[in-house]
Formats: sequence, C-alpha cells, structure tokens
Amino acid sequence: MTNTPKAPSERTRVKRGHTRADYDRETVCAIIDAQPLCHVGVVRDGYPMVTPTICWREGDRVYWHGSSKSAMILAALGGEVCLTVSLMDGWVMARSAFHHSANFRSAMIYGQPEKSADADKQAHLKAMIETYFPGRWDTLRPINDAELKATTVLSLSLDEASAKIRTGGPVDDDEDYALPVWAGVLPTFEAYGEPEPDPQNLTGVALPDDIKAFLAKAPMKA
Amino acid sequence: MTNTPKAPSERTRVKRGHTRADYDRETVCAIIDAQPLCHVGVVRDGYPMVTPTICWREGDRVYWHGSSKSAMILAALGGEVCLTVSLMDGWVMARSAFHHSANFRSAMIYGQPEKSADADKQAHLKAMIETYFPGRWDTLRPINDAELKATTVLSLSLDEASAKIRTGGPVDDDEDYALPVWAGVLPTFEAYGEPEPDPQNLTGVALPDDIKAFLAKAPMKA
Repeated sequence: MTNTPKAPSERTRVKRGHTRADYDRETVCAIIDAQPLCHVGVVRDGYPMVTPTICWREGDRVYWHGSSKSAMILAALGGEVCLTVSLMDGWVMARSAFHHSANFRSAMIYGQPEKSADADKQAHLKAMIETYFPGRWDTLRPINDAELKATTVLSLSLDEASAKIRTGGPVDDDEDYALPVWAGVLPTFEAYGEPEPDPQNLTGVALPDDIKAFLAKAPMKA
Repeated sequence: MTNTPKAPSERTRVKRGHTRADYDRETVCAIIDAQPLCHVGVVRDGYPMVTPTICWREGDRVYWHGSSKSAMILAALGGEVCLTVSLMDGWVMARSAFHHSANFRSAMIYGQPEKSADADKQAHLKAMIETYFPGRWDTLRPINDAELKATTVLSLSLDEASAKIRTGGPVDDDEDYALPVWAGVLPTFEAYGEPEPDPQNLTGVALPDDIKAFLAKAPMKA
C-alpha cells in the first residue's frame, strides 16, 4: 500500500502492521455491528482494568451499559476509556513459526465516555435489545424505575477510532515455499447451537420471529 | 452461595455478581486453555489501551508475544497490565429487558509482566505453537536469530487472577413467569470451517495430524 490512511489522532494511529489499518467510519461500524462483545479498558487507581461486556451502536456512537456501582462504570465516568471490539476469523498456518498469524477484524475506540441522561436511558436500553433482536422490546415486561436507576448507560463517539484487519492466507519467505509444510487458513466463526427453551416457558409459547431472524443471519454449529 | 470465595487481592475481588466469582487456579487455567484470544490492557501516557492478541499458558503463567517495537509491548514492559480472556457462551433471553444476560467465562489477570530472556524465547515460542498444534513446531522451517530478535515474549504469573462465570437459563422476577414471553438460552460456540489450503502448497502435502487433532476437538460450522 503506498497511501497509508490518515489516523484521526496520534494514539489512534496503527504503528505495527499499518498497511492493515483503516480509519474509515464505515469499516469501524461494520466491525462493531459484527461483534456484540467488546472489551472496555479503563485506568483504575493507576492500573489498567479490562472488562468484557456487550456493546451496540447507535449512529456515530458506540454504547454499553452496566450496574451503576460497577468498578468499570465508575472508572469510565472518571476518565478516558479504550473500547476494543475484535473478531478472530481464522488461524493462519505458515511454513515457519514466525509467519503464523491470525485473520481478525478489530476496532479500537478512544475517548471520554458520556453518561446517558436519566430521561434517555430507556430509549438506549431499548436500542440495545432491538439492535440484536428487532421487535423483542415490545414483547417484554416493561422496564421499571428501579431497573433504570440501577443501570448506567455510557457511550463513546466514533471520532477517535481505528480498525485493523487481516485477511487471506499465509505470507511466507520466498525460499520457504519449497518446503513440504501444509500451509493455509483454519477459518473460525461465532456459531449458534439450537435454542434452549426455559423449562418454565408457558405452554404454546413458540420461538419468536426476532430470535428466528437473529439465528437465520448467524452461522450454525454442526 | 453463602461462602463467598476469597480474592487474592483487593483489585482482583469481583464486586458485582460476586456469587459468579471463582479464584481457583484450576478454573482460571481452564478458561485460558479454552480461549487463545486475550485482550491486554496497559496504561500508555496515562490512558488505557486494549490490544487483542493470542495467549497461551505454561504452568502457572500466561504468555503472549508481539513485535519488540509495538506500543502494547513497550507499555507492558513499563507498567502493570490486566490481561482478560473471555468466551461468550450464549445469549440469555429473559421475560424482561433487565434480566437479559449473557452466559460467559472470563478470567482477569493482573500484574507486572516479565520479559522472557533471549535464551528462553525460542522455547516459549515453541510452546505457543505446540499448545495449539502439538507436533507442528518440528515440521516448520526453523526460527532464525532475526525473527527471535524481532519478537518479545511476555508473561504474567497467575497469582493475581480471578474468574467470573455465568451459566444456565434466565432468572426472572417471580411474577414475570406468568408472561407468554419465550425465554431461554441461545448457545454460542467458536466453530471452525473447512481448512483452506494455500494454493502454493506442494503437491501431495496433506493436512497434518496436528491440525486434524486441533479440529477434532473443536465444534465445526454447519
């Protein structure tokens, strides 16, 4: 690549493997949309803390939530965070140990999180459910004030984001292609198993359309 | 649970959902062994940075590696890290939005990483390959001095580690069990697709036993 794309800030600039970097909003959004699991990094009493949690996107912001008293939420309210979303897409098996790699998509978003106002929390929590299971929110028992109070919703602008992506097969040293070593890619997927209904579901309550649609888009396990 | 297990340090103590906490070495090891992908959190110029990378375990230590010049490696050499390993095992669909959850296994390991001595690096990189693909190392083109020099291997003791695990179906409010809402679990798995051989593999080079054994242990995609 001759044109290295421009990073929105110095800390966002991908230094190692910069030809795999992408700062396009569209690329960052696609990665967030493909992976609900994120890892939120905060600084707490001077040391780093990395917490896995579910995230979702609303336009140009990425959202997550937590107990209002959780250490991650409290630290995120008091300082900057780095929210990282990553998907492993495969093991890249090369002819030397050094050129083994992984295919992946990852996005890192830096910034000072914004706490959603009390009046807006319900709409964001609805967006969380509806992002993954469109139509489900209205079928549920309505959220109540105590539940809203116990929950903090945070979000980050995507202004300071970078993506890094590796695809394709191994790239070996020229002379290593003569070796009789199996090289290639072992592709990995987040796959779903058969839904497990709660034994306490009422008789006649079938799998709803929101879950059917969700599973129809996902790879299934053999 | 009436006996809350004891954490090895205050920052390691699981405060929210502490009944899901487990500080047993065996539990932490099992999570690391089940998930090669980890997220390494460091403090860099005062802000957090979370980098996805591959980890592996040797006894009572968790290892990872990187380019000797990478920002993550340099920051990890200069301060404490939080290495988090997490697997999402399923979406927990409840009868209210609030009780929706995720089944997961996660381990957080805190500490000051140790840099492997030059003389030990090769053995650790061999352990990385052999952890996942036993027998593969000896089939590869041997690692050379330039490759070793370009690579830094770091490790953390598991002394300051905690695990957090959620399993099972939704736990709804008593009165919500009367609602005609489908509740249950949507189980998720890291599944493998068919291996994709490099088009430049030599004629007659078949999928080796190390990769066959690796795939035999993994769920496959339908």
